[in-house]
Amino acid sequence: MTATAKKRSVKSGLPPGSLIHVGEDKKSTVKIRILSFNGEYVHEDDRTEVGECLPPEHGKVITWLGVGGVHRARVLEDIGGLFHLHPLLLEDVMNTEQRPKFEDYGDYIFIVLKYLALNGSKPGKAISTEQVSLVLGPDYVITFEEGTGDIFGQVRERIKNDKGRIRKMDADYLLYTFIDTVVDNYFTVMEGLGERVEAVEDALVAGVKEATLRSIHDLKREMIFLRRSIWPLREVVGSLERGETRLVSDRISVYLRDLYDHVVQVMDSVEAYRDMLSGMLDIYLSRVSNKLNEVMKVLTIIATIFIPLTFIAGVYGMNFAYMPELKYPWGYPAVLLLMGAVTSFMLFYFKRKKWF
Amino acid sequence: MTATAKKRSVKSGLPPGSLIHVGEDKKSTVKIRILSFNGEYVHEDDRTEVGECLPPEHGKVITWLGVGGVHRARVLEDIGGLFHLHPLLLEDVMNTEQRPKFEDYGDYIFIVLKYLALNGSKPGKAISTEQVSLVLGPDYVITFEEGTGDIFGQVRERIKNDKGRIRKMDADYLLYTFIDTVVDNYFTVMEGLGERVEAVEDALVAGVKEATLRSIHDLKREMIFLRRSIWPLREVVGSLERGETRLVSDRISVYLRDLYDHVVQVMDSVEAYRDMLSGMLDIYLSRVSNKLNEVMKVLTIIATIFIPLTFIAGVYGMNFAYMPELKYPWGYPAVLLLMGAVTSFMLFYFKRKKWF
Amino acid sequence: MTATAKKRSVKSGLPPGSLIHVGEDKKSTVKIRILSFNGEYVHEDDRTEVGECLPPEHGKVITWLGVGGVHRARVLEDIGGLFHLHPLLLEDVMNTEQRPKFEDYGDYIFIVLKYLALNGSKPGKAISTEQVSLVLGPDYVITFEEGTGDIFGQVRERIKNDKGRIRKMDADYLLYTFIDTVVDNYFTVMEGLGERVEAVEDALVAGVKEATLRSIHDLKREMIFLRRSIWPLREVVGSLERGETRLVSDRISVYLRDLYDHVVQVMDSVEAYRDMLSGMLDIYLSRVSNKLNEVMKVLTIIATIFIPLTFIAGVYGMNFAYMPELKYPWGYPAVLLLMGAVTSFMLFYFKRKKWF
Amino acid sequence: MTATAKKRSVKSGLPPGSLIHVGEDKKSTVKIRILSFNGEYVHEDDRTEVGECLPPEHGKVITWLGVGGVHRARVLEDIGGLFHLHPLLLEDVMNTEQRPKFEDYGDYIFIVLKYLALNGSKPGKAISTEQVSLVLGPDYVITFEEGTGDIFGQVRERIKNDKGRIRKMDADYLLYTFIDTVVDNYFTVMEGLGERVEAVEDALVAGVKEATLRSIHDLKREMIFLRRSIWPLREVVGSLERGETRLVSDRISVYLRDLYDHVVQVMDSVEAYRDMLSGMLDIYLSRVSNKLNEVMKVLTIIATIFIPLTFIAGVYGMNFAYMPELKYPWGYPAVLLLMGAVTSFMLFYFKRKKWF
Amino acid sequence: MTATAKKRSVKSGLPPGSLIHVGEDKKSTVKIRILSFNGEYVHEDDRTEVGECLPPEHGKVITWLGVGGVHRARVLEDIGGLFHLHPLLLEDVMNTEQRPKFEDYGDYIFIVLKYLALNGSKPGKAISTEQVSLVLGPDYVITFEEGTGDIFGQVRERIKNDKGRIRKMDADYLLYTFIDTVVDNYFTVMEGLGERVEAVEDALVAGVKEATLRSIHDLKREMIFLRRSIWPLREVVGSLERGETRLVSDRISVYLRDLYDHVVQVMDSVEAYRDMLSGMLDIYLSRVSNKLNEVMKVLTIIATIFIPLTFIAGVYGMNFAYMPELKYPWGYPAVLLLMGAVTSFMLFYFKRKKWF
Repeated sequence: MTATAKKRSVKSGLPPGSLIHVGEDKKSTVKIRILSFNGEYVHEDDRTEVGECLPPEHGKVITWLGVGGVHRARVLEDIGGLFHLHPLLLEDVMNTEQRPKFEDYGDYIFIVLKYLALNGSKPGKAISTEQVSLVLGPDYVITFEEGTGDIFGQVRERIKNDKGRIRKMDADYLLYTFIDTVVDNYFTVMEGLGERVEAVEDALVAGVKEATLRSIHDLKREMIFLRRSIWPLREVVGSLERGETRLVSDRISVYLRDLYDHVVQVMDSVEAYRDMLSGMLDIYLSRVSNKLNEVMKVLTIIATIFIPLTFIAGVYGMNFAYMPELKYPWGYPAVLLLMGAVTSFMLFYFKRKKWF
Repeated sequence: MTATAKKRSVKSGLPPGSLIHVGEDKKSTVKIRILSFNGEYVHEDDRTEVGECLPPEHGKVITWLGVGGVHRARVLEDIGGLFHLHPLLLEDVMNTEQRPKFEDYGDYIFIVLKYLALNGSKPGKAISTEQVSLVLGPDYVITFEEGTGDIFGQVRERIKNDKGRIRKMDADYLLYTFIDTVVDNYFTVMEGLGERVEAVEDALVAGVKEATLRSIHDLKREMIFLRRSIWPLREVVGSLERGETRLVSDRISVYLRDLYDHVVQVMDSVEAYRDMLSGMLDIYLSRVSNKLNEVMKVLTIIATIFIPLTFIAGVYGMNFAYMPELKYPWGYPAVLLLMGAVTSFMLFYFKRKKWF
Repeated sequence: MTATAKKRSVKSGLPPGSLIHVGEDKKSTVKIRILSFNGEYVHEDDRTEVGECLPPEHGKVITWLGVGGVHRARVLEDIGGLFHLHPLLLEDVMNTEQRPKFEDYGDYIFIVLKYLALNGSKPGKAISTEQVSLVLGPDYVITFEEGTGDIFGQVRERIKNDKGRIRKMDADYLLYTFIDTVVDNYFTVMEGLGERVEAVEDALVAGVKEATLRSIHDLKREMIFLRRSIWPLREVVGSLERGETRLVSDRISVYLRDLYDHVVQVMDSVEAYRDMLSGMLDIYLSRVSNKLNEVMKVLTIIATIFIPLTFIAGVYGMNFAYMPELKYPWGYPAVLLLMGAVTSFMLFYFKRKKWF
Repeated sequence: MTATAKKRSVKSGLPPGSLIHVGEDKKSTVKIRILSFNGEYVHEDDRTEVGECLPPEHGKVITWLGVGGVHRARVLEDIGGLFHLHPLLLEDVMNTEQRPKFEDYGDYIFIVLKYLALNGSKPGKAISTEQVSLVLGPDYVITFEEGTGDIFGQVRERIKNDKGRIRKMDADYLLYTFIDTVVDNYFTVMEGLGERVEAVEDALVAGVKEATLRSIHDLKREMIFLRRSIWPLREVVGSLERGETRLVSDRISVYLRDLYDHVVQVMDSVEAYRDMLSGMLDIYLSRVSNKLNEVMKVLTIIATIFIPLTFIAGVYGMNFAYMPELKYPWGYPAVLLLMGAVTSFMLFYFKRKKWF
Repeated sequence: MTATAKKRSVKSGLPPGSLIHVGEDKKSTVKIRILSFNGEYVHEDDRTEVGECLPPEHGKVITWLGVGGVHRARVLEDIGGLFHLHPLLLEDVMNTEQRPKFEDYGDYIFIVLKYLALNGSKPGKAISTEQVSLVLGPDYVITFEEGTGDIFGQVRERIKNDKGRIRKMDADYLLYTFIDTVVDNYFTVMEGLGERVEAVEDALVAGVKEATLRSIHDLKREMIFLRRSIWPLREVVGSLERGETRLVSDRISVYLRDLYDHVVQVMDSVEAYRDMLSGMLDIYLSRVSNKLNEVMKVLTIIATIFIPLTFIAGVYGMNFAYMPELKYPWGYPAVLLLMGAVTSFMLFYFKRKKWF
């Protein structure tokens, strides 16, 4: 949450349904792309206002209204008016701090998703999020993206080029395609994170650095963040699959089940990486403590050998008038021998204690 | 629990339904505000006694009886008598150590909420709580606040100025508005706490101080406290949303679902902050142990280099009569060279061990 | 479990339903108090045998048979015969190591509770437990207490003095009153424990003593013990509230719901104290490690400054014949200056490392 | 798992239902005890083969076939043929690494239990396990024990001497008696373990020894092992109690409920001991770290006092020609005074830091 | 995930049902083995193309189509065309990063399993995984293996030699046999891991080496990995056992229940090993800290004894002109006595503190 992002608290005290944008200002213009198609026909129309946008009827036609940018209340109100959307739905579209969710409004269903992207190597901010809201009506799908990055560009190409079965299917299949695009992207993000986890693991094997610890913690936080995004997504896809709404036909339930499996698989990877990171943290910590032990052992060995020797030298450095040993010719070699004996004993003792 | 707060144990041994105030004495007078309205009509009436308070009938009228202060048993008994409220309900209103809860008494429903406020920078006491009890009857809502801070002042203004749809809706919408006000306030509290969490994170990056540890623990405790307040709230809103009572019409269920989402969102933030704080705690602790390691390494390097050198100096400080080395002219430079060699070897050894 | 308590294993190998007392011998005589009452009538009768104890019929009469002491098999058998109680029920009454439980025998229901009391300041034994067994029949309640402390004395007074609605209600309300008395007592125990927790917290702020650690662990153990007693109690009250038995009428379900809330509230306090104690443990441990760090730093600073200095002094304490420095008049002040320089460098280094 | 025990992997690749013994060879002969009885009649018959074992009909007769030793496939096949038991059931009887389980085969039910025994003081192997399999048919119970220790000897005596109601009841009561015997034995095992836990606690108070740590870990492992044995047992008894099979009549459901309570009570003890052991582990560890602290403090105090003093002595041990202090008559006492002053300052500093 | 393995992200942006192999390239040719049989008849046919593969009808015949290698899209498409399999199913077969799962497509059911194998002693890679996909139709089973290791070779032998009841049963029993083979193999893997756990335990008793820590962490990770593979397997077998599909008859439900027990038993072993490994980790860590304590004690004892002695020697090494003690004949022996006294006092102090 940067300082420039509008906070949720600006809405405190306002009546429900007030259209106020909450979140970062991703861009300043709104881009609207309208694509109408059926088996034989495709029509595309780009604009910045909604106006009288619905295309003429050519038999049955599926309309996809793609909105890029959700910060203009007036544009949303126009769309809301045209499709008779509930004010609370529009409020949710503008508030980009939503969790993934599924809501059935009877005539249309509303889905909020989080599109993830992997950033560069900025530490602690590996994943950026863009909120994607979807509305499915009987023969239309509206997609609201926070930015104008055109997340669903590939879907548009597939429709225009009539690839796959997308032109032969209904609006619910189009909705499925959008969710599938978002979920497929999660695999890409997971693989990117996986590479980072492995890089950190290699760094851990190479040596104990505090930067490694920081990276482990950062990645762990990303995993917690991911899990928080994916858990509710599972419920969303599960609700669709269980056929809780009449807008989604049985025909696509096999696709939704497949999608559900994908979500569970992503979740599984997240859990696997979390476990790996926990293990790496344990290894890091026990290595730090091993290192401390090693340092202490060196200190102890050196000190324990030399402190008694220094004492012996100190004794014969005393200036007493009557110290008979000092006079004997063999005094000096005898003391050196004594020192050697003490050292040998110490080394033997440390050896037996397996200190080195 | 301060020493001046009346404790729950004063009620031990009394028959159930005894009206005794449990909690801090927030103020000494009770303030009663009565607001009656429908689409065309608004009437406001402030007093300190209930008396013959119900306004005359102007067709259908919604009455909001706002009570500030719950420590006077007689006032509560009067209200209880007027609206035929159950003695156990009144007991719960006076006992301000309740958890958020929802109770259906058939003719009216009873809801207990916790209104939170963020205090100044007093450590360990970041959040203060005020109990708000709500009673919803067929055409009235009674709100009981612990203090006279007038939590619902903005709602009163909206009614008087006919803003939003509040004047056109029934008592259940009014109830929803009150709960929504309380929940909206949670976002403000969460943002305040979020800023503190970030401040602590910055302090953690700056250095390892025990005050930081204290702050982390304090914030963690606040999060646990918050979670404890919000979990039952979720159940309360969930019960309302599932339409378990006939006093709440289907018309407002979309608002309640929205409210439920908000509660879940707050919960989510609490969990996110808890995870962040746990991570920060781990970082703090591993930093402390890193610091210890560093200190130990410095000690070991210094001691391991100089203790053998001091021993060598000690040997040649001995006063034996027959120490031939002492007589040689090159004895002193030879010993200095020996010391230099020992030092070099040590430094090389530490280098290889990657101690610096 | 003290050595004098009879252990559960004495029953191993005996047929089920064998009446053998398991637990501490709390007292040696059994006291039986019989109270019969309805709206107009009260009769009290104290004895040590059951005999022909049922009072004459005055219209409809509620009988409360209070038994103090459960170690005499014959007394229990007499009561069992009179009220046609199942042998397994009597076995459970005598075995005072039961968990709180609810059992429906059709003609009567059987409830086991744990009455808690806070002992003096004996460490590790803060809470003592007394098992209370309740049997509810159509127009009687039997209470079995382990001791003769007369836990329900206040209820007896309320009945005799006709306070509250107890004389106007049925046997199920009497049962509720007993459970309520036990649960109310939990609040007193919790407050006592809360004071101890706060005392330990103050001790923790004052300094790190091993006694504090011991106290934290003792209190934690008490909390675990409490939780274990209260969890099943929640189920017991929940079973009653859900109206799983026809002996409990709908009339008192609002009281049982209130009771359920109280149990949940106690549970909540236990959890809150557990979290507090966990936090205190963490603070204690990190303080211990902070203290170690501080000690190590002092050692390191002193040693790192003086060990090199001592070495320098040692060098000029050597007795070589040819050490030109020793002859120079400025030799001694030069060495003192060198020592000062080394010290300054060290202090500067430690300052930069923020060791003090 | 000792090396002599046959491992589960010997069965890999064989068709299901292959009768191969898995587990330790507890003995080499199989002992079969047949007891037929009703209210008036008892007949006992011991043998090592099954043969034509069913006794003649004397009106209605309950038959208990007790088999000691499950390693002979042929004996099990004979019994399986006589009672029409499923091959998979016999396979489970021979595989003594089963978890406790309940299986309903329609005409008979199959129960696997674990009989526990407390060994001598061998560390890490406190509990030995014997698998007991029970088959309940309409008028017979078959018990399979791994060894010939005659676990159910007391039940046999009770039947022969007509003690309790066992002769008057049906086969389901006999089954209950067997399970009750196994569960009752758990209390004995728990008490034995409890004594060990207390012994370890006493050792912990006496001092910090590594053997204590080992004992705590061993006991913890036993508790985890016990919990693993008892959890599925709870399900077994729960399935019986819920009357999921028509072979168990309602008449004994009160006994099964009692049994269920006992299992829960054992589980509760296991959890309580686990918590105690965790607490003891924490105390052990913090004591170890306290001890380290104390040792470090002594080292630091001694070193910090004497290292500067030694330095001062070293300075005046230098052999410079021009050290004026050495000539002054008060030089020596002045240095001694200086040393005293340094010592006093250090002691004062440590006192203020509360190091002793 | 090695660098040569194709990653899941290659599929991002493609329409659902695109057949692209994800995973390691295990081999380059595909091997197809067709086995048709009933009670009287067996026919085997090996090839690398599917072609017109279905054998002529000899009354009712069960066909097992075993496919080794899943990386060729064309082969899978041929099989999919022949058996009318859904494209998403084929996509799942080719994507070898699936979790174990069960899917009911109406006319056939689809099961994904993980076949495990224990590798040599390569650390951190103890278990290798091969994905096995099974399709059960009314009278056929298709098995897809990643490699051509012929996992189900023993089943083929059993069919050809008419061992067990496999030739007399339907396709569902064949499916059960395949799953049973995979699960039986888990026991072999668990025993291998168990031996490694015991080896590590022995190493732990022998001494504290960092390699042991590494092994514990590696084994722990394997256990987490195993648990992740087995949890969904439990659901798969559970779904089959509960008879959720009409393709599986009641006749084999007793076998499936047995299989379910086996899966639970494997899970139980995994949990038991995880607990053991956690305990071993705790022991390792406390041993490391014990060792540090011991090292510190030796250092402290040596330093604390000799540092004061060295100081005394240093004092009498000072060169003051006026040090009367130096002149006395008993000065030297007196100092030696003093040193002896200091040493004795120290030793006595350490003894009392129980440091050795």
